[in-house]
Amino acid sequence: MSPHETVDDLAAEAAALGGPTVSQQEFDELFEQVKTWGKYSNPSAGAWEAVGPAAAIEAASLVRTGTTVSMALPWNTTSGPGNANPALHYMTDLGVREAPEPSCNKDFIGVDYHGKAVSHLDALSHIAYKGQLYNGNSSRDTVTAVGAEFGSVTALGTFVAPAVLLDFTVLFDEPWLEPGKAIRASDILAAEEKLGVKIQPGDAVLIRSGHFRRQREWGVWDPSNSSAGLHVDCMPLLAERDIRLLGGDGDSDVRPSPTPGIHSPVHILAITAMGLPLLDNLDLEALGQACKDEGRYRFMFVVAPLNIPGGTGSPVNPIAVF
Amino acid sequence: MSPHETVDDLAAEAAALGGPTVSQQEFDELFEQVKTWGKYSNPSAGAWEAVGPAAAIEAASLVRTGTTVSMALPWNTTSGPGNANPALHYMTDLGVREAPEPSCNKDFIGVDYHGKAVSHLDALSHIAYKGQLYNGNSSRDTVTAVGAEFGSVTALGTFVAPAVLLDFTVLFDEPWLEPGKAIRASDILAAEEKLGVKIQPGDAVLIRSGHFRRQREWGVWDPSNSSAGLHVDCMPLLAERDIRLLGGDGDSDVRPSPTPGIHSPVHILAITAMGLPLLDNLDLEALGQACKDEGRYRFMFVVAPLNIPGGTGSPVNPIAVF
Amino acid sequence: MSPHETVDDLAAEAAALGGPTVSQQEFDELFEQVKTWGKYSNPSAGAWEAVGPAAAIEAASLVRTGTTVSMALPWNTTSGPGNANPALHYMTDLGVREAPEPSCNKDFIGVDYHGKAVSHLDALSHIAYKGQLYNGNSSRDTVTAVGAEFGSVTALGTFVAPAVLLDFTVLFDEPWLEPGKAIRASDILAAEEKLGVKIQPGDAVLIRSGHFRRQREWGVWDPSNSSAGLHVDCMPLLAERDIRLLGGDGDSDVRPSPTPGIHSPVHILAITAMGLPLLDNLDLEALGQACKDEGRYRFMFVVAPLNIPGGTGSPVNPIAVF
Amino acid sequence: MSPHETVDDLAAEAAALGGPTVSQQEFDELFEQVKTWGKYSNPSAGAWEAVGPAAAIEAASLVRTGTTVSMALPWNTTSGPGNANPALHYMTDLGVREAPEPSCNKDFIGVDYHGKAVSHLDALSHIAYKGQLYNGNSSRDTVTAVGAEFGSVTALGTFVAPAVLLDFTVLFDEPWLEPGKAIRASDILAAEEKLGVKIQPGDAVLIRSGHFRRQREWGVWDPSNSSAGLHVDCMPLLAERDIRLLGGDGDSDVRPSPTPGIHSPVHILAITAMGLPLLDNLDLEALGQACKDEGRYRFMFVVAPLNIPGGTGSPVNPIAVF
Repeated sequence: MSPHETVDDLAAEAAALGGPTVSQQEFDELFEQVKTWGKYSNPSAGAWEAVGPAAAIEAASLVRTGTTVSMALPWNTTSGPGNANPALHYMTDLGVREAPEPSCNKDFIGVDYHGKAVSHLDALSHIAYKGQLYNGNSSRDTVTAVGAEFGSVTALGTFVAPAVLLDFTVLFDEPWLEPGKAIRASDILAAEEKLGVKIQPGDAVLIRSGHFRRQREWGVWDPSNSSAGLHVDCMPLLAERDIRLLGGDGDSDVRPSPTPGIHSPVHILAITAMGLPLLDNLDLEALGQACKDEGRYRFMFVVAPLNIPGGTGSPVNPIAVF
Repeated sequence: MSPHETVDDLAAEAAALGGPTVSQQEFDELFEQVKTWGKYSNPSAGAWEAVGPAAAIEAASLVRTGTTVSMALPWNTTSGPGNANPALHYMTDLGVREAPEPSCNKDFIGVDYHGKAVSHLDALSHIAYKGQLYNGNSSRDTVTAVGAEFGSVTALGTFVAPAVLLDFTVLFDEPWLEPGKAIRASDILAAEEKLGVKIQPGDAVLIRSGHFRRQREWGVWDPSNSSAGLHVDCMPLLAERDIRLLGGDGDSDVRPSPTPGIHSPVHILAITAMGLPLLDNLDLEALGQACKDEGRYRFMFVVAPLNIPGGTGSPVNPIAVF
Repeated sequence: MSPHETVDDLAAEAAALGGPTVSQQEFDELFEQVKTWGKYSNPSAGAWEAVGPAAAIEAASLVRTGTTVSMALPWNTTSGPGNANPALHYMTDLGVREAPEPSCNKDFIGVDYHGKAVSHLDALSHIAYKGQLYNGNSSRDTVTAVGAEFGSVTALGTFVAPAVLLDFTVLFDEPWLEPGKAIRASDILAAEEKLGVKIQPGDAVLIRSGHFRRQREWGVWDPSNSSAGLHVDCMPLLAERDIRLLGGDGDSDVRPSPTPGIHSPVHILAITAMGLPLLDNLDLEALGQACKDEGRYRFMFVVAPLNIPGGTGSPVNPIAVF
Repeated sequence: MSPHETVDDLAAEAAALGGPTVSQQEFDELFEQVKTWGKYSNPSAGAWEAVGPAAAIEAASLVRTGTTVSMALPWNTTSGPGNANPALHYMTDLGVREAPEPSCNKDFIGVDYHGKAVSHLDALSHIAYKGQLYNGNSSRDTVTAVGAEFGSVTALGTFVAPAVLLDFTVLFDEPWLEPGKAIRASDILAAEEKLGVKIQPGDAVLIRSGHFRRQREWGVWDPSNSSAGLHVDCMPLLAERDIRLLGGDGDSDVRPSPTPGIHSPVHILAITAMGLPLLDNLDLEALGQACKDEGRYRFMFVVAPLNIPGGTGSPVNPIAVF
């Protein structure tokens, strides 16, 4: 707060930062607009049903220099802002269980991976709106203590297709977008223009806000409260572009949410309305640099979730190949 | 046991099945023969240090039909033979923790993934011989209750390179290799011949014994006791071929071991002597079919382990792209 | 099966062993007969609401020789029959996390404690019949992914009162009761007579079948299928005696169940109808010996469950003091 | 900090608060002074070896009003200061796994219980000084990835004996002792005098500093940095009194430690030198009130740790009976 700002200035700035408020009614209209219920023969897979051999072929055709970049945050066993449920990592053997040779070191990993601390994929069972999952399935009836009957990560399988990185730090020429900054549909168009890339039908789209550069320089904060991300007005555009996967270094949603009473509207529009899986909390710092170095923002993209029947998602380590 | 067999016949059969016994002295000579200690500037990464852009480019050049095949067994929460420490999968939210919209379904996963039940990658910290990890690092000093300082899975990074499937059910024209059946160096050469493929320097090599076809048809057994796999005499050949990754539908080792007092000799030669990570317990049934259908046994191969600092490996879901 | 037995003989034996079949209608009448809904001002605590200072005073008055006996099975990390979800026990520090002095050894414990492998207490949220918990609370509405709002173990608190051991191996003069053997109401009366003990209002009642002596001598079996325990006809008697806690070396229910379609009728009658917590899987071998040595079957009894808000029970280590 | 205090005043206050510094040499002399190595035939049980029937009889003789008080903090699944590794509590069944009746609610609990957030018992394997556990056992050789061969919680068994509460909020007539406040040997004598109680040989001793009253009124802080507790000069007095168990609403150690380079000197003197188990993080608020109400500070005390072979301790819910 500079010395000359007033409280009203700040409110105006906040509004400018987060974009226009969207009423619940407007949100519901957006929901109807982008909805693809009934579109897929295997609705548990949603948009990934349409990821086929042609996508893999096109993806492979984008490989020229062979540079590979992975995007998983380190397994984070330290609680703190944004990591209320730290991952577990325990050594279960240090060469003493089996005899005599070889001796084996083994470890246990455990994680409640949704949230803000683990790079992960959201399957279609993760998000329900008004009690309904994608395609109108009742969340209460299909997701129980034994897991998800509908929309499990196993139903998704794996992902091999082209992806586009929209690096908004390049568009805005800032080291990072401030938490709370909304990316608008017009920004997506501007980013395509500036980066010289165009989202194609069937692509994955990754959003870089510079989240982890900011975190490394300024320290950790809790992105549940304040995070750069997409304003809901981006979703009709992304629906039109017929994408298969959306991800970012946040969790795609700008926070605070532009829609009162709905904390994650992009999650709802993507997962519940469009059947579009999300990738949350990707470390896109190296990818941003690679795209700059390679001079292009479209590349082969591979996501290999764990095969967890009934799982609502999976920790993942996505890979770009240039 | 057919009615005309004698106990002596059976013993002879068992010996034939498992291949010749290898004394500890002979094993130690093999160890010295294939050892690559000092070869890599980042010994924690071992053979993966040498996986670079050229491998990714060559891998992508193998993509023609775009068929993708993944290889992870389902997350197995049911204890039984070969799964003494079943994986955990608990629902941590069923739409009740956060209010009001959307409601979220979330789950916790946990696993002590080494063993015979989880498709996983072994990093170089996993196996020590005579107290030493790869490159001579002391296991006791470098792997402690806080994890592996040397040879962690994070040091490996990810893998994008060509892979060859050696499908020994095709070579032997059997639905599967019987547990205990040793694959010999000469079998590898014969498989290359029969399958029309040649392992190139830099490749991953996958071994299909039909393990999971047998399991599906005959039921589960504990492969710790009896499993088809490589006889140690394969390792000088694979060392000569300069491969970067070895995996299979078992854990690469034939069991019982041909070397008395050493339960996993291939693990030692690969990981500890050669710095070669292993992939254990892959479901290669679909891959075998795909290779047959595609008419080729070499393809793009991607492995994306979780980024677990200090981890001795990771559950993975490897992907072949044809 | 002796050589002269026929299949009909076996069926008759099984019927004799397990006691008479009880129809669902008869079961529902029993339910109504023993039901105490509305009796307690804090129905989450059920029968433990009535455990007060007088019980502790009487319990202490039973202490004469000072012999103490505890009853918890060892934490069982080995999967097997009756232990499908083995407990976790991992070392989380071996003197390396904190510097410099002292060095600390630490461990993680984890367990899904219901089942047959862990000595544990069942709180009133554990068992629902026709969707209802004790006092008519809806299980679906009050027990969710965040835990039990009604009938949690924290609502129970701790237990200090007299307990009676009914040692049926003494009554029947056998080393153990065979799995499947039903204990009948008349057996309880006979045991009181033979052991010279009488269940008083406010007591805990412990049932010894010799389960763990049999297990140690004959090996582990899965008591889900076959277990000595109480026939439902015991419950009106126990209700009349106004007991506060029921436990045993099985889980109180004879298995197979005498009531078709209801796998744990004693659980329902105790927990759901009577508001009576249960103690399952206690090792009563030492207690049986102590009662014999002390010449009495009533003693001070202390149960100290973990304070788990929303928990459906707790692993425990109950203590008898003579 | 009152407006008239200076920085020098504060430093003097801090020194006064924490008591005199104790050099490492003085600490080592204290260690030798209170050491009981060689005293017990079962050194894994240490001071609990001496807890026998007479202690239970005397404990029971203290029961007059029958008031019972338990001391376990609630299972804390929320990370925060002092709770970096929050406990796990997941529902594993909500009535859907077993069919048809009854339906069962089940849960998983998991915890790395040492630290400041869980009421727990420290067994003798928990603390090593200069690499040695109690009785001179090598920590490195006896505590490994498979658990503690020496000094496990199972070796301790259970505890039934008299206990004395030393309520220092009464002695100092304050609602709580400020974090950092050292309790001195002379304070113990003064507390005995003021409370009208005398620690007898064989007793447990509980120290109330009002920790949790302060936490409830002022909020959570991390007691690793600042906590009221015993100055090391208390330990010769407690050794002389021949106590069997020491516990408190902190972890017995005043923090910061009076001995540079030794973060938990009371832990060392109690566990490693004296073979005296500790109870950490007990909620003593209700007990303090009960002692005041009952007009006495000595009572029956029962601790029933879980039976974890190889465990370094256990979460517990200790019970006082008046």
